[in-house]
Amino acid sequence: MVIGRLSLYLRELQLVLGANKDTISSSTLARRLGLTASQVRKDFAYFGQFGYPGVGYRCDELIQKIRSILGTERVWPVALIGCGNLGQALLGYRGFGNQGFSVVAAFDKQPGLIGKNFEGLTVQHMDELGDTAKSRNIELAILAVPASAATEAAQEIVAAGISGIMNFAPVTLKLPPSVSKVGVDLAIELEQLAFSVLAKQRTKDRL
Amino acid sequence: MVIGRLSLYLRELQLVLGANKDTISSSTLARRLGLTASQVRKDFAYFGQFGYPGVGYRCDELIQKIRSILGTERVWPVALIGCGNLGQALLGYRGFGNQGFSVVAAFDKQPGLIGKNFEGLTVQHMDELGDTAKSRNIELAILAVPASAATEAAQEIVAAGISGIMNFAPVTLKLPPSVSKVGVDLAIELEQLAFSVLAKQRTKDRL
Repeated sequence: MVIGRLSLYLRELQLVLGANKDTISSSTLARRLGLTASQVRKDFAYFGQFGYPGVGYRCDELIQKIRSILGTERVWPVALIGCGNLGQALLGYRGFGNQGFSVVAAFDKQPGLIGKNFEGLTVQHMDELGDTAKSRNIELAILAVPASAATEAAQEIVAAGISGIMNFAPVTLKLPPSVSKVGVDLAIELEQLAFSVLAKQRTKDRL
Repeated sequence: MVIGRLSLYLRELQLVLGANKDTISSSTLARRLGLTASQVRKDFAYFGQFGYPGVGYRCDELIQKIRSILGTERVWPVALIGCGNLGQALLGYRGFGNQGFSVVAAFDKQPGLIGKNFEGLTVQHMDELGDTAKSRNIELAILAVPASAATEAAQEIVAAGISGIMNFAPVTLKLPPSVSKVGVDLAIELEQLAFSVLAKQRTKDRL
């Protein structure tokens, strides 16, 4: 949970620094994120002392520290698996680059897609994943194939020696314990949103 | 947390039913999702009794029950705000339709996009959002604009009377308490993945 909040702090500190403010107080940072100031101070204290009395936190210092904890003070080369609609959109997504991730290779199995160029990358055949992963030091993969192809693709990703998979397919992947995963199931997010909207309506109807 | 798991159960039960199995035991369902059987039974007991001794759960019955809890036994009309790369990919994303969501209108402010047709929808100007939301009973919006445009777009969504926003922009939205939100920040998900990969490497290096 703390690790999840570190990402939020990082994003907010980058915005603050982008607005030419060098420091921020725990209470301002907390308010911007809908947290309490004591929660913010507790989170940072957990990783060491960063604050300056009467000044607050130095944004650049805190950004660097959070990045070193998260492991994103360097750039992670990432492989995109699946170059359909969603994959192509992810290639165009600018948010990754700013945060230390660079999609350096894209793969698919559809003959019609292989060799095509998207955002400066030429789509390669999945058979080349292992070699490319090795030569480009790729440790992370974004899996954006249809549900029916996800399990097989995940096996190929693992066989290629990649250690982390961000899975967009609506399938629960079974992976060896040495491989990490995060699942982004957009329909599940929408369901949670719908439930929240409905819960508020139900509460209102009851009042 | 239970609500989050209901979505996972629902997805898995749909796969089971799709494979022509009418019933499932709590232990099988648990194993498929990496949970314990007692957790599964506890979750379902929380909402009433669904299991049959010696049979397990009837998939169709449980699917219907979960959908009625989540509010997705009906179809929610959804507005897409932002029709760039990501927005267009989301329009093509097939996962929403199966789960009770239908993107029925798409909006943007870029003159070059308005009037264009994607996946059968004609992009409308944001100025029409309020009228369309009313006439189509739209309660949910998917926000897929750049970070710089997100705050203003969110205000327009709220002004249009929409009660839930799924936000893809890497910005923490400030919304009235009557409006629900879920944030999908893809860079944050990748950060969490990178941290998990790194944590495993650090543990291994220490051994």
